[in-house]
Amino acid sequence: MHTLQDCQGLDAQDPLRALRDLFTLPDGVIYLDGNSLGAMPAAAPARIAQATTAEWGQQLIRAWNTAGWFDMPQRIGNKIARLVGAGAGELVATDGTSVNLFKVLSAALTIAHETSPERRVVLSERSNFPTDLYIAEALCKERGYTLRLIEPEELVTALDQQVAVLMLTQVNYRTGAMHPMSQVNAIAHAAGALTVWDLAHSAGAVPVALKADGADFAIGCGYKYLNGGPGAPAFVWVHPRHAERFWQPLAGWWGHATPFDFTPDYRPAPGTQRYLCGTQPILSMVGLEVGVDTLLAAEPLGGMAALRSKSLALTDLFIELVEARCGGHGLSVVTPRDHARRGSQVSLSRQDGAYAIVQALIARGVIGDYRKGSGPRHPDILRFGFTPLYVGFEDVWNAVEHLRQVLLSGEWQRPEFNQAHAVT
Amino acid sequence: MHTLQDCQGLDAQDPLRALRDLFTLPDGVIYLDGNSLGAMPAAAPARIAQATTAEWGQQLIRAWNTAGWFDMPQRIGNKIARLVGAGAGELVATDGTSVNLFKVLSAALTIAHETSPERRVVLSERSNFPTDLYIAEALCKERGYTLRLIEPEELVTALDQQVAVLMLTQVNYRTGAMHPMSQVNAIAHAAGALTVWDLAHSAGAVPVALKADGADFAIGCGYKYLNGGPGAPAFVWVHPRHAERFWQPLAGWWGHATPFDFTPDYRPAPGTQRYLCGTQPILSMVGLEVGVDTLLAAEPLGGMAALRSKSLALTDLFIELVEARCGGHGLSVVTPRDHARRGSQVSLSRQDGAYAIVQALIARGVIGDYRKGSGPRHPDILRFGFTPLYVGFEDVWNAVEHLRQVLLSGEWQRPEFNQAHAVT
Repeated sequence: MHTLQDCQGLDAQDPLRALRDLFTLPDGVIYLDGNSLGAMPAAAPARIAQATTAEWGQQLIRAWNTAGWFDMPQRIGNKIARLVGAGAGELVATDGTSVNLFKVLSAALTIAHETSPERRVVLSERSNFPTDLYIAEALCKERGYTLRLIEPEELVTALDQQVAVLMLTQVNYRTGAMHPMSQVNAIAHAAGALTVWDLAHSAGAVPVALKADGADFAIGCGYKYLNGGPGAPAFVWVHPRHAERFWQPLAGWWGHATPFDFTPDYRPAPGTQRYLCGTQPILSMVGLEVGVDTLLAAEPLGGMAALRSKSLALTDLFIELVEARCGGHGLSVVTPRDHARRGSQVSLSRQDGAYAIVQALIARGVIGDYRKGSGPRHPDILRFGFTPLYVGFEDVWNAVEHLRQVLLSGEWQRPEFNQAHAVT
Repeated sequence: MHTLQDCQGLDAQDPLRALRDLFTLPDGVIYLDGNSLGAMPAAAPARIAQATTAEWGQQLIRAWNTAGWFDMPQRIGNKIARLVGAGAGELVATDGTSVNLFKVLSAALTIAHETSPERRVVLSERSNFPTDLYIAEALCKERGYTLRLIEPEELVTALDQQVAVLMLTQVNYRTGAMHPMSQVNAIAHAAGALTVWDLAHSAGAVPVALKADGADFAIGCGYKYLNGGPGAPAFVWVHPRHAERFWQPLAGWWGHATPFDFTPDYRPAPGTQRYLCGTQPILSMVGLEVGVDTLLAAEPLGGMAALRSKSLALTDLFIELVEARCGGHGLSVVTPRDHARRGSQVSLSRQDGAYAIVQALIARGVIGDYRKGSGPRHPDILRFGFTPLYVGFEDVWNAVEHLRQVLLSGEWQRPEFNQAHAVT
């Protein structure tokens, strides 16, 4: 078993250790919730202040040109593309994940309908992130489709000739289990379905090869592993083979071929501009660009492959230490042990007390989060995200030590840790 | 005719003059483009820096509760409600105008369909802001409706028994002409249609009485007269009589009754939460709150009624001085002279050179904007917005003096003022 000294040694040898200095983290906090809201890059305050004071304040309307605001969705999109295996000019940063999912699922259904109008089912997992299911449910209602929800092991049999689109989140928000994207795309395509991927817990967390792996559509989140700040804009990717046929009902003026001609009829722009709708929230967009730039600072050190190696070492270590040092307290590891099936988080479950244990840890400065379960197959979850940019091996040791103390002392049973509240 | 001295006297007597100090404006600029991007409140940089450094940076995920991020859409919405004649708990700040228009138009069509399924037309103006027409066109295509576009004087006859929804922008973005909201609602309702209002150029610009005037649905923009910063979130209002039947396809988790139960099926929340979709861009939302707070600082000085008096005095003065001092240069006033039909802008047209004249003015520090025309009825426009919070009477004098010099000298004919570019 690794000792504290071992962990300190791993940090000392970590070639990515210097990246931690690119973030501002509060004292006394071990932050294992970057999968919910990424930490703040140290460069963010100055860049956001510049956008506020110098660009908005001094340039005013002129900043759309002089400060490059117009180009931000494409410019940032091209940077994110490098993190998810997409080409330049294929991906755009805009709107939120739910809105973007609506766009790509609309487009996927429209395109599927052109060749296979008899396919009337959207297939997804019952344990997918709920907003994905709500958006799919709403769109199915709108278009007269059926949303079919399955468990992961039912995928192959469920992909029948009724399925128009398979919509999956690559890394499950609760369990951290990861789908093999290339295989799933191949199975779906063989069954005649298009694929829509939600990369909320993948982009910036695990290597993604959208184009090489044959995905059709993808969206992802800006404020988790991309460290773009609270509610930062999300992104849209469409495989080039579908780009010209992409159509979505959020046909706002920013997706128009010539928005400043102010013509009364809609004519979609070529390329990624077509995936836009309206004016973007620039201050939040600036935060996103800083976050993405900070992640790209890892490129000279090996980029996503190097980050992935460290992420797996961190989650391996966490699993090992929890089992070795917190045994006998009823915790189970929910996240797959198989590296190929694991995202950048570790989820634990426990018969009871999951919520309170997370609160007790937060009170000690170890910030993870709790996710409510539903039924015996989907238990309550204690969720810990490991962002290799700023989480170290000694952090893992200390987090587990706090967890051990919380369990040993029974402090999680205090009333203040058992009051309901909301967490993203 | 007013003299420069008269204008200075009007500023000296202006009871709203002190509000100008609540904004940071660049030296040497007369800003007449607050109808495109409102100026920066002086309080914005510090508040945005706090949200970045102290909230995101130090509180991290906890800020959703500790910094009140969760409540922002409703909290800011309730503040905006005071500016547009809506009640508390009826209006919410969220997403962009195009996305919000999609939501309320969807809801309006669904509600109209319940009682009058035979009505299959959305009625709007050909000169409405294009994104409104694009969204309506897309939704009509999606739902099998027809978008019927008319000129304003055709309104009464066009409101036949086929019209389900009348969708109008209260103040026209090009001409500044304002619809009498109460009358139009009465006419529409008498004809059996619901009304959807775009308040992009009304909210914070003219007194609006959504509820008293009987409107059904409204959306509006956060970055124009609300001074919320570039691309700031927009807002949604629904008359309480429709709130319980509101349904829209952007059914994301933030609109769910219990989002943190993570249930796979969508159950819309009661109240304004139902109008939300996903996580909001918090840094941009913070900018919006500062902007709205700055506008509400006028409440003790008479609020929107006092701002409206000053706005009309400013636009009256501008029209008078343009006609008196820039006569013989081919300019026409497009904006209605009738106060009841005028927004907070003045639009001029000219046979040619509109774009170049605007560029020449910008080079002199007088920032208005240009809007491209389409056909003889809709000529090219030189557009000047008057935000009474920070525009003074001497500013109007000086702006007209610059315009006179640009025309007299012919400097607008220089090549550098005749290169095409994009402006919002």
